Amino acid sequence: MASLVQQVLVRPGSTAKLARREPADLLGLPDGKRRGRARAERTTARLAELQELLWAEGKRSLLIVLQGLDASGKDGATRGLLTGVNPQGTEVHSFKAPTSTELRHDFLWRIHQVVPPRGTIGVFNRSHYEDVVTVQQLGLIDAREAERRCRAINEFERHLVDQGTVILKCFLHLSKEEQRLRLQERVDTPEKHWKMDLNDLETRKHFDELNRLYDRAISATSTEYAPWYVIPADRKWVRDVVLGELAVAALERINPRFPPPNPDFAGVVVE
Amino acid sequence: MASLVQQVLVRPGSTAKLARREPADLLGLPDGKRRGRARAERTTARLAELQELLWAEGKRSLLIVLQGLDASGKDGATRGLLTGVNPQGTEVHSFKAPTSTELRHDFLWRIHQVVPPRGTIGVFNRSHYEDVVTVQQLGLIDAREAERRCRAINEFERHLVDQGTVILKCFLHLSKEEQRLRLQERVDTPEKHWKMDLNDLETRKHFDELNRLYDRAISATSTEYAPWYVIPADRKWVRDVVLGELAVAALERINPRFPPPNPDFAGVVVE
Repeated sequence: MASLVQQVLVRPGSTAKLARREPADLLGLPDGKRRGRARAERTTARLAELQELLWAEGKRSLLIVLQGLDASGKDGATRGLLTGVNPQGTEVHSFKAPTSTELRHDFLWRIHQVVPPRGTIGVFNRSHYEDVVTVQQLGLIDAREAERRCRAINEFERHLVDQGTVILKCFLHLSKEEQRLRLQERVDTPEKHWKMDLNDLETRKHFDELNRLYDRAISATSTEYAPWYVIPADRKWVRDVVLGELAVAALERINPRFPPPNPDFAGVVVE
Repeated sequence: MASLVQQVLVRPGSTAKLARREPADLLGLPDGKRRGRARAERTTARLAELQELLWAEGKRSLLIVLQGLDASGKDGATRGLLTGVNPQGTEVHSFKAPTSTELRHDFLWRIHQVVPPRGTIGVFNRSHYEDVVTVQQLGLIDAREAERRCRAINEFERHLVDQGTVILKCFLHLSKEEQRLRLQERVDTPEKHWKMDLNDLETRKHFDELNRLYDRAISATSTEYAPWYVIPADRKWVRDVVLGELAVAALERINPRFPPPNPDFAGVVVE
């Protein structure tokens, strides 16, 4: 069977075909939340080791871009991925609606400021892809401008990769019914009200349209150097297992290592 | 017996008296690394709960300042404290020697830029206190300028506290012999060479002087609103237990809460 990574990859040059991907897919993983959770924890432990090497080496970085509709689990996925990894070498950035200062700059300006420094893992909870998809759905840009932005993103990401960043782009793929259940649960749980506002219910009306726009944006920006992965997100444990294994595979591929011993230290006695 | 928090507090207006504090002190904790580790883990779990409330509330923040001589365990303490807490609401900032741009500003400029936003926990691994102690030891400022800086720090911290930040300042108190052992271990372990350079051995020659300067700076800046705590750091598990309990106590004191339920959601059915 194809590896997890291969199954969720959007092959560069092909289209994402979100509609044909199953948000509740198990991807061949044995069913069972408990077993899945245990697997995700082992993956996090491995990620913690690799992150220490990345930090020690100090030459490359890993950028994980998380996109997905409301309630697709971007917060939960971030938490699942990084809880257990040394916080000193990780950064999470959440992008909200741009501020007035940010709007006076090109859309990549605020992104570039917070790309992960060498030696670290950065997670973007939403990203520059909002500036393609969300703004297009809102009618702020047209399809032609969206295409132009996708080209600009490809060049920007190529530059980051050339300079030592590994980019992993993940779309958390949620079904319409699962989104309904999750939003209803938030509505029914007073302690979760702070996580949402009534606009989220308005946005839900554009569920299909948003998925179509994501399909197009993902297809246009899944490149050899910065590919997209579509992660089935209806089951939280599947989402966490897949994301963890993608991150581990990405770091194993670049194989960070401890810097060589410093010969100046040979025989030194501390007094 | 006095609580852990009370034992390590530097009472505002009193002097720190580092020389009379025992870096290997158990503070009345039952001896035993395993039991200590278990206690620290329970504390982290509680911290994770409180941090979720802090984040949900979005009104206050917690700033933890970690200072200590080389090998006192600032990195390890950060890791121990935050591993298990949601990375989305935490930030770690390590301050190195200032860049040329930073040097063109007052010493609080780079600090102010990265104070923790409302809803988050920020850890400073080194801080503006380097600009009092280290620079004085290096002869870059005199005692009078150090005093002036302490006054400026007190005003700056008061402002942050007034605006909703809880400040917890911790000095990791290491004995000279334990520092020797830890540095020697780094020298003897090739995989740890990247953590140090030969200058650290030079700095060690000023161990007593640095402790005296810290004593003075801590005494001058332990205030009612932003007190210092001196944490015995020779035993890593004691350090982690104490730091965790200080953080939990600080958040319990301000008692963050979920925002009230939003009445607009009453009876809403998601479609």
